[in-house]
Amino acid sequence: MVINNTSSSLIDILRQRRQRLASLIDFPAILWSGSSNPRNFPANVFPFRASSHFLYFAGLPLPNVAIRLDAGKLELFMDDPQPNSALWYGEMPQRHEIAAHIGADDAKPMAELESCLEDAATVAVQDAATWTQQSQLLNRWVLPQKSPIGIDLELAKAIISLRLTHDADALVQLQKAAAVSVAAHKAGMAATPKAKIEAEVRAAMEGVFIAHNMTTAYNSVVTVHGEVLHNEHYHHPLQPGDLLLVDVGGETEMGWAADITRTWPVSGQFSATQKDIYNIVLAAHDACIAKIYPGVEYADVHLLATNIIAEGLVDLGILQGNAEDLVEMDAHALFFPHGIGHLLGLDVHDMEDLGDLAGYDEGRQRSDRFGLSYLRLNRPLRPGMLVTIEPGFYQVPAILNEAKLHPTYQKLVNWERLSHFHDVRGIRIEDDVLVTENGTEVLTAALPNNISAVENLCK
Amino acid sequence: MVINNTSSSLIDILRQRRQRLASLIDFPAILWSGSSNPRNFPANVFPFRASSHFLYFAGLPLPNVAIRLDAGKLELFMDDPQPNSALWYGEMPQRHEIAAHIGADDAKPMAELESCLEDAATVAVQDAATWTQQSQLLNRWVLPQKSPIGIDLELAKAIISLRLTHDADALVQLQKAAAVSVAAHKAGMAATPKAKIEAEVRAAMEGVFIAHNMTTAYNSVVTVHGEVLHNEHYHHPLQPGDLLLVDVGGETEMGWAADITRTWPVSGQFSATQKDIYNIVLAAHDACIAKIYPGVEYADVHLLATNIIAEGLVDLGILQGNAEDLVEMDAHALFFPHGIGHLLGLDVHDMEDLGDLAGYDEGRQRSDRFGLSYLRLNRPLRPGMLVTIEPGFYQVPAILNEAKLHPTYQKLVNWERLSHFHDVRGIRIEDDVLVTENGTEVLTAALPNNISAVENLCK
Repeated sequence: MVINNTSSSLIDILRQRRQRLASLIDFPAILWSGSSNPRNFPANVFPFRASSHFLYFAGLPLPNVAIRLDAGKLELFMDDPQPNSALWYGEMPQRHEIAAHIGADDAKPMAELESCLEDAATVAVQDAATWTQQSQLLNRWVLPQKSPIGIDLELAKAIISLRLTHDADALVQLQKAAAVSVAAHKAGMAATPKAKIEAEVRAAMEGVFIAHNMTTAYNSVVTVHGEVLHNEHYHHPLQPGDLLLVDVGGETEMGWAADITRTWPVSGQFSATQKDIYNIVLAAHDACIAKIYPGVEYADVHLLATNIIAEGLVDLGILQGNAEDLVEMDAHALFFPHGIGHLLGLDVHDMEDLGDLAGYDEGRQRSDRFGLSYLRLNRPLRPGMLVTIEPGFYQVPAILNEAKLHPTYQKLVNWERLSHFHDVRGIRIEDDVLVTENGTEVLTAALPNNISAVENLCK
Repeated sequence: MVINNTSSSLIDILRQRRQRLASLIDFPAILWSGSSNPRNFPANVFPFRASSHFLYFAGLPLPNVAIRLDAGKLELFMDDPQPNSALWYGEMPQRHEIAAHIGADDAKPMAELESCLEDAATVAVQDAATWTQQSQLLNRWVLPQKSPIGIDLELAKAIISLRLTHDADALVQLQKAAAVSVAAHKAGMAATPKAKIEAEVRAAMEGVFIAHNMTTAYNSVVTVHGEVLHNEHYHHPLQPGDLLLVDVGGETEMGWAADITRTWPVSGQFSATQKDIYNIVLAAHDACIAKIYPGVEYADVHLLATNIIAEGLVDLGILQGNAEDLVEMDAHALFFPHGIGHLLGLDVHDMEDLGDLAGYDEGRQRSDRFGLSYLRLNRPLRPGMLVTIEPGFYQVPAILNEAKLHPTYQKLVNWERLSHFHDVRGIRIEDDVLVTENGTEVLTAALPNNISAVENLCK
């Protein structure tokens, strides 16, 4: 963490954020940043990742600190570096320097936090050392896997209402994350002709993040087996007829994420069958983005995608029947089993540490329908929200083998026709879409997604 | 984890390891593999890293499993994949397939572990979810930060006596880790002329690991501020007169590590002052490796390095006095404040999860002398041990500023002469050295360390 690298408007932005919070709650909030997780021994740790809620109000990824927010004031609790730490870690900023940098009203050693806890709400941090400390200090269980209750729930809802829409400073960060992630995808496409296995394409892409002092926002998917949705293997050889499904996004030093998927041909040229399916997915993608507007229900954006995909598959002769009826029966979900997207911000699934509290509007719950249960966002859209749009088509053996035996689904699919599309195991196209007053701004628009442009980048 | 990627001799090697363990303890041992740590929300995890003790006896980085070792038998406790996991994760190997692959005598669901715990010893795993589970099941605190006691201590000592020396299968892995790490350093040197900041060199190096489906064994040091020993910043610009100190090592998929440091000039050419100091560090490095032989005390290897460095600094006019006396007074430690190296194996500081139990021979303890307190290994060397040799020279402001005021040290340094070496902030040269029956084999020897060869690689 390098404090001279942050924007000069940080103090103002952080003040605005905590003043907005103060207008929503009338009790203090204490947010811990978290600590590093040990890897194979205590001194060998995973890279530190600060809690997103902390980052939102403190602006800097500081390990092992806490902030107290009360009526628009910010107090920083942080121990100064140990006297001999300069030997190993160099000169580190002192508490008062950090406090000045983020515009804190006061700065105290960690030990003084204990006397400032009264009536304070918090949000559980993911690492065990920190949630244990939170629980001990607040004298109640603060568990990352448990839904918050009482004032913790009130605080969570207040933070969600702030973080749901992005301010100017957040957008600068999100645009940076998007721009570097676009560069990473271009590097991956350019590296494909010479790559022998998936890992080599991944290396070219993640190298772009490392070179920009960024990390991946989530574990990369770089696979010729796109039909495995959460594929984190990278050992498969690249064969000329394969499609490479690549879901890779970066995260800025301050924690803001991008999330991009492209699917490109290993050979540099899509086959006719691959083009057919790709263009259905792209049509769904484009139509969804065109539909986004303040007030539109995100669930309706999802349903638009399902309809376009069902129609496209009917046109190709893969699905049989009327598209609307097919969607009614969740037949589209045989090939598009996930939701059209999710919130994006400091987390790639923004605020998913709070379960569905952020994704689902008050009073709404997940559907148990096969075609809707994986929808992660169900709210009316508002200016300043950033969402992903990521339709896909997959031939998942676990789904299709079951469908073949299923009385409802076996007759809805023309299995013989489908077999002609055996070289399309998985396609997804994903962009990051900001809802604006007038419609949308696609933060990842600099990365082409039409067939000829993608083919050109793979050469 | 891809089970068809492992060596065919795995079953034999694992059997030998547990038979050797059985010859040392007469009670069962249960080793947990560990689980992934959540990053910013539960579904977004840090990459899984299995416990090293588990990896040694199970051979595969399987998450959320345990093995029970008793009298040379291996029982695997593992839940089969959930029925719907194939949708998201593809077809995963079943328990019985894994068991066959590693030569387990039996394979049971996790729930059956509870009835197989009697009189069993264990080693604490680093992640909180796992050590909590270990503590609950064994009905005693099993904490990664606490020294083991009772049968847990007996087990730890038995495992240490095995893991201290490496068998043929371990050496294959360690050689692979070394070879890819050598390639990474060469890539880093080659990338330096075009790089503008440290992060770009790091990207070129870590990309080599990613392309080989490997990870870093520890957080990389790639810095023009080598005087900060644990420098994990990568934002500094590269200036022509700078030295880049690069401590980067990879880890194979099965968890075996390499640990290499090189120091090279950003411009491709060392200055005269940089050459002078570099050659002192290299002389210490070479002499230490030449001294390594079965039966030699590692602490004596360290003392050899301190003497050569002290002598070299006297010859350069930086230290004043007799080299032996200077070492006696720890004056060398003003510039070489750390130990000459450490054990290397599944962990980059091998078995440091057990504190100094592995590094220090029975009955030995860390010195509190400034020049010796950071020595991580204090044992007689034996064939099959793998150690690092990593002498260095640093101008650490925190140390030198104090020495200037210190009645003992202020007169031992010719401060005016030292000021001529201002372009040498930090130099370290580190290789991985296997103790053999006849002396040594340097696993990282393919990476040159003499001045002209390093300069050639930086072009």
